[in-house]
Amino acid sequence: MNIPRLHGWRVVLACRPHGKPLTSDFRLESFAVPALEDGEVLLRVRYLSLDPYMRGTMDDRKSYRPPTPVGGVMVGEAVAEVLESRHSGFRPGELVLARTGWVTHSVLAGQQLARLDERFQPVTTALGILGMPGFTAYTGVENIGRPQQGETVVVAAASGPVGSLVGQLAKIKGARAVGIAGGPEKCTFVREKLGFDAAIDHRAPDFPALLADACPDGIDIYFENVGGAVWQAVLPLLNMHARVPLCGLIAQYSAGSTPAHDFLPATMNELLSRRITVTGFINSDFAAQRPKFLDDVSRWIAEGRIHYRENVISGLENAPGAFIGMLEGSNFGKLLVEI
Amino acid sequence: MNIPRLHGWRVVLACRPHGKPLTSDFRLESFAVPALEDGEVLLRVRYLSLDPYMRGTMDDRKSYRPPTPVGGVMVGEAVAEVLESRHSGFRPGELVLARTGWVTHSVLAGQQLARLDERFQPVTTALGILGMPGFTAYTGVENIGRPQQGETVVVAAASGPVGSLVGQLAKIKGARAVGIAGGPEKCTFVREKLGFDAAIDHRAPDFPALLADACPDGIDIYFENVGGAVWQAVLPLLNMHARVPLCGLIAQYSAGSTPAHDFLPATMNELLSRRITVTGFINSDFAAQRPKFLDDVSRWIAEGRIHYRENVISGLENAPGAFIGMLEGSNFGKLLVEI
Repeated sequence: MNIPRLHGWRVVLACRPHGKPLTSDFRLESFAVPALEDGEVLLRVRYLSLDPYMRGTMDDRKSYRPPTPVGGVMVGEAVAEVLESRHSGFRPGELVLARTGWVTHSVLAGQQLARLDERFQPVTTALGILGMPGFTAYTGVENIGRPQQGETVVVAAASGPVGSLVGQLAKIKGARAVGIAGGPEKCTFVREKLGFDAAIDHRAPDFPALLADACPDGIDIYFENVGGAVWQAVLPLLNMHARVPLCGLIAQYSAGSTPAHDFLPATMNELLSRRITVTGFINSDFAAQRPKFLDDVSRWIAEGRIHYRENVISGLENAPGAFIGMLEGSNFGKLLVEI
Repeated sequence: MNIPRLHGWRVVLACRPHGKPLTSDFRLESFAVPALEDGEVLLRVRYLSLDPYMRGTMDDRKSYRPPTPVGGVMVGEAVAEVLESRHSGFRPGELVLARTGWVTHSVLAGQQLARLDERFQPVTTALGILGMPGFTAYTGVENIGRPQQGETVVVAAASGPVGSLVGQLAKIKGARAVGIAGGPEKCTFVREKLGFDAAIDHRAPDFPALLADACPDGIDIYFENVGGAVWQAVLPLLNMHARVPLCGLIAQYSAGSTPAHDFLPATMNELLSRRITVTGFINSDFAAQRPKFLDDVSRWIAEGRIHYRENVISGLENAPGAFIGMLEGSNFGKLLVEI
């Protein structure tokens, strides 16, 4: 059976950014959706996830994900609806999780798709608190941070999908959670809605002193997803045997020129003298823990112990601007594009 | 019972060094050895150990050891002979291990001393291969590096007391050992006497390329005790899930001005994208492993499976010059001062 030839829209990388991406680094273009082959499924994207790691794929350098070629479709995960299926496991109308990229329509092999069961309520959680960002927080806390009762856990981007769960998991484990966020509105949310013990505005002129005040017993676990000035403020506060799950470095993804000072020796010296462990990690290394993650976190959400916030914008054409804003912290909660 | 009032010699910190220490930063002075109190022991130092960590104590900054005050005696471990004892556990003529500092004579409480048993043959091994440096290598390899069969282990200062054991332990565990050392003589020793698979001269102009050639399968464990340019050469070669026991940073202990470039972002980026773990450590955190260390390494020495080299100079007055030389790599083997 054939369906009439369909045209979709996609966002491609128009050129490689120099430092901060500009909207002109992206291009929206239409494309003819290919006909289905056996085993394939035609998808219509409902929600596209925008995540900081995508910035890395825009550069032509070694990272844990390959670079997107110039002219290539921006990568990304989405919740999509099955329009047409030539795979026995999927039927039209079903919702799936898929790595479609920044597109309205996609044809993918059925084995690349995961059907969304009833735990994903609303379905957008499959891209946030119950998706890659949530699993990132969970695996970093469980395997690397391992907070103990009474320890102090600090996380930046604390109102975001990773940071918000890091702090709430720390609280569930009896640790003290201190969040870092941009601006008073996010800080209030982190304290009052997410239940962190403290939230510090990294834009405050005396941010390092405020952070030190919020961590009177030092920092036992710093969940690193920003780098830059926040790392410099955290470093002197790290306790003996502190653990640093290294999850992301958003502050340096778009850094143009680096400061004319070498911060590496001081970092290494602190790691040595206070027996600190820094461990780079990626959630996919812990894939076997995904069922337990989904059980734990979906139950804690149902019990009202875990809260989250989503920031949904509309229209694929607005994805580049929203993505650029996210890199500067202008989103508030997990950023999604409804298509 | 009283012995006639004795005068000894000691080396004190004359002033804090700026960058590389100068001999004028040290002062040799005589002192009246205090009379013994109950529970104390009078020691005459036979061998003083000179170790890179002592450089850190010359600066007035936070480290894992407190700074030596200006005018204070330089810290250090020694093998010493008991001259006189008012502690029931020690008798004149016995040899002990003690933290005497850079002195000819010392009065210490008996409980601060450890008698040297017959395993320490010759007794200088208590300061080297069977002492703090050897235990540092052992704990870093056993607890943090954990080399597996077929993995590649790289260590700098490979002819020194820590590095030489790191590589030989790696070989015993079935890993490949690549040493970095300064100059062809040390490299030959590392390969031929210590049995490393390769030894690279860090003074060679094409050192990074030579290191890459010597590690065709990348680096799984880099035992870090130098930092600086060696770290920059190692970083791009580290494999996925590499482990970096961070033991010392001799190249940056005396660095005056830092280069006008920030090497921290690149380091953090590599740790993240290749899921690398860097762990600062100090042997004393693993004190419970000392009996097993002594059993293992003294047996391997007896079996001819572990080799080591000592570099013994004479005279306390020559300690400052020898120490300065060690920081620049001019010693060859574990540096000791016979007094």
